[in-house]
Amino acid sequence: MEDPWVTSPAPEAARTGGAGADLHLELAGPGGVRVRLMRALREAVRSGRLAPGTRLPSYRVLAADLGVARNTVAEAYAELVAEGWLTARQGSGTRVASRAEPLPLARRSPAPRSRKPVHDLAPSSPDAAAFPRAAWLASARRALAVAPSEAFGVGDPRGRPELREALAEYLTRARGVRADAERIVVCPGFANAVRILGPLLPGTVAVESYGLPFHRELIAASGAATAPLVVDEHGARVADLPATGAGAVLLTPAHQYPMGGPLEAGRRAAVVDWARTTGGTVLEDDYDGEFRYDRQPVGAVQGLDPDRVVYLGSASKGLSPALRLGWMVLPDRLVDDVLAVKGARESWSGVTDQLVLADFIARGAYDRHLRRMRGIYRRRRDRLVETLAAHAPHITVRGIAAGLHAVLDLPPGTEPSTLAAARRLSLAVDGLTPYRHPNSPMPPLDGLVVGYGTPAEHAFPTALNTLLATLPPPP
Amino acid sequence: MEDPWVTSPAPEAARTGGAGADLHLELAGPGGVRVRLMRALREAVRSGRLAPGTRLPSYRVLAADLGVARNTVAEAYAELVAEGWLTARQGSGTRVASRAEPLPLARRSPAPRSRKPVHDLAPSSPDAAAFPRAAWLASARRALAVAPSEAFGVGDPRGRPELREALAEYLTRARGVRADAERIVVCPGFANAVRILGPLLPGTVAVESYGLPFHRELIAASGAATAPLVVDEHGARVADLPATGAGAVLLTPAHQYPMGGPLEAGRRAAVVDWARTTGGTVLEDDYDGEFRYDRQPVGAVQGLDPDRVVYLGSASKGLSPALRLGWMVLPDRLVDDVLAVKGARESWSGVTDQLVLADFIARGAYDRHLRRMRGIYRRRRDRLVETLAAHAPHITVRGIAAGLHAVLDLPPGTEPSTLAAARRLSLAVDGLTPYRHPNSPMPPLDGLVVGYGTPAEHAFPTALNTLLATLPPPP
Repeated sequence: MEDPWVTSPAPEAARTGGAGADLHLELAGPGGVRVRLMRALREAVRSGRLAPGTRLPSYRVLAADLGVARNTVAEAYAELVAEGWLTARQGSGTRVASRAEPLPLARRSPAPRSRKPVHDLAPSSPDAAAFPRAAWLASARRALAVAPSEAFGVGDPRGRPELREALAEYLTRARGVRADAERIVVCPGFANAVRILGPLLPGTVAVESYGLPFHRELIAASGAATAPLVVDEHGARVADLPATGAGAVLLTPAHQYPMGGPLEAGRRAAVVDWARTTGGTVLEDDYDGEFRYDRQPVGAVQGLDPDRVVYLGSASKGLSPALRLGWMVLPDRLVDDVLAVKGARESWSGVTDQLVLADFIARGAYDRHLRRMRGIYRRRRDRLVETLAAHAPHITVRGIAAGLHAVLDLPPGTEPSTLAAARRLSLAVDGLTPYRHPNSPMPPLDGLVVGYGTPAEHAFPTALNTLLATLPPPP
Repeated sequence: MEDPWVTSPAPEAARTGGAGADLHLELAGPGGVRVRLMRALREAVRSGRLAPGTRLPSYRVLAADLGVARNTVAEAYAELVAEGWLTARQGSGTRVASRAEPLPLARRSPAPRSRKPVHDLAPSSPDAAAFPRAAWLASARRALAVAPSEAFGVGDPRGRPELREALAEYLTRARGVRADAERIVVCPGFANAVRILGPLLPGTVAVESYGLPFHRELIAASGAATAPLVVDEHGARVADLPATGAGAVLLTPAHQYPMGGPLEAGRRAAVVDWARTTGGTVLEDDYDGEFRYDRQPVGAVQGLDPDRVVYLGSASKGLSPALRLGWMVLPDRLVDDVLAVKGARESWSGVTDQLVLADFIARGAYDRHLRRMRGIYRRRRDRLVETLAAHAPHITVRGIAAGLHAVLDLPPGTEPSTLAAARRLSLAVDGLTPYRHPNSPMPPLDGLVVGYGTPAEHAFPTALNTLLATLPPPP
């Protein structure tokens, strides 16, 4: 492409000419004359049209050429000298700084992204199209109107008090959490919470045999090893936790991820007793506790002993993972340590979204949105189950009482071919295998983890049909 | 405080009575009958009023007591059993789970926070009261209306394309940065950027002899050592950088922090040449480059060589540190590595604020806000300088051409007593000493770092008078 600003000169000629290069600069674009002149000169140097060492015309000459004030040219030169583009020496005029080759910056081609699948049944994401924009904006209007000035200064490392108060009320009421604002710390999400808590955990953290590999990696990155607990239809077998040593265990009690069962009542009590007896800590990942279809959501284990259980939740499933808003409800003894590790502001969430979510919760808009989405996801869940019962009765579905995903059991050995079929049909869906802890004593299972929350409403039926088409035939 | 829900029983009596405890539950608060009953029962267990093992009344008895449906009581019991609060065994009725002592949760007293100073001249924060709420909200309205649905799903690790496009245009135009959207990565701020870049830097990072101790700590936390460069009136003495080895250097070229000078033109070129010759990397911390009072802001060093300089900026000074919005403009070779380290979503900024800032920049509201604030801060700066000239002519002020802070030179040995005087008058202000790199070859200086951006407009004159009152008398 021809540079529009500089049509000549040959640098050689310019270097010899006493009056400096004969520039034909076009002062295009926004800004005043000086700004446009500076931009044109920078561009000429960058593109290599003005070679290092080239002498520029005097103020007088260039000003006359361009029909601008001499002072404007003088100022532009001076600023470019200050920026390092030009050099000025008494008696030798203004020259292009003598530096290594000018750098034609290749415009980076877009990163090779994995092609977006046509049908998206990958788990872990709610329906992005259902984000309640109008209600969110209404809360933004109110929240920005009433927020004190100090909200926009450097704030409390725990997060905005408005949000922590709203969360304390909401989590107590809706999730059976024992929360008060003083022990809530707002953070950008579960991963950040684990990164912050990691250094405070002991050398080994027990995890469920099936769980997000990413969570195991986070714990490993914090320097702790993970030890797998067997998962059965009652959740994790917490009786296998080590009887001594102040250990830690990460659980998904409301809805085992990905297998889908709630942690059975006796085990809920047992894991709390284990923590009390050993001095251990339970990390409760309540990632989608609000979405339960058969009856009221199961309350949080944390309510049984807030001094032994760290409760971790977020708005990622209820509203959007793009908000980057999560929360920890901490035992008193951990608050100061967490704040010390959290430290500087990098782990803080943006204050406006915190203020907006506080209003959104306090006004009941969060409850209304969750209720609406619960209906939508429940219908999708029903449709998934009915479709499979009608067209693929040989496939068992588990974990359908709650959440935004289900696990489909596949005949042994058929997971790889099923995933290959899904790829061919451009269907995003997870295989069960990566969820399994590599050291799990449980035999490997073939399965699919199907997220029915992800598609937009209109796209769900087609995604479901595509899923059917990928399933292995009856034996 | 008396628990309002349970006025009796004595657990002993309850355990013996065949009909179970005589509960006087008050179903207060929001929610349906079942929810309120569950809350009252949980509260009674938590507070210890219902001891472990206590047998509860039958559905029929409690329903009659409370005047509610038997089914409601049955459901409440069943859910509390599922949650681990109660146990139900055939023939022995429903009992409070036999667990360790109930836990009266002491309400955590608010963390002992350092008392907010009356007068705030601590550096590094803009005037929080000046946050442009109305314009921000107008942008929010537009941005939420036009954003595609996928904005609320799991997005691009680099940040929203709308914001990266707006930043590319803005940084090119206003800061002389060579930016395109493909090489911009949005992050929550400078500290997060350094945490991400840290693992990609070599073993030693050169830093300015005077700088934020927090930045040195961040680099140390990433496993690299820091080596101090002498800072003089022309900025950091980059000629002292090691001549071999692909090192890295962190600079504040537009406005040395805290000393205040811009990096001199020859040094700007020299540091880029150093990076090219040695294969090194320059980290350019452009923390307040927009605020320059004597003339146009000095353009970014990054413009001289975008393949050798990482440009780091944020909205923390221009708008608010509470937004947690920053950006890196990266050399092509670093983009993939940065995204790999950035990894999961914990380092992502909230999407709504990204969308709003994109609109805010694109509509010119950011420029307008910066122009307004530049006028305000410039008047404060002038007032600071005039006040000192009139009332404390023995105190030299440096770094007044730009930014939101100035350095006041103090007579040798007087920094500690000056800071003590400030504390007595409840004035927040920084001493210069902590800014000095512990291994710096420069002699220690006594001084104050005065942030004139922080107070609200109305509070500034009083803060200034208080500052005057803390200064040591003329020798």
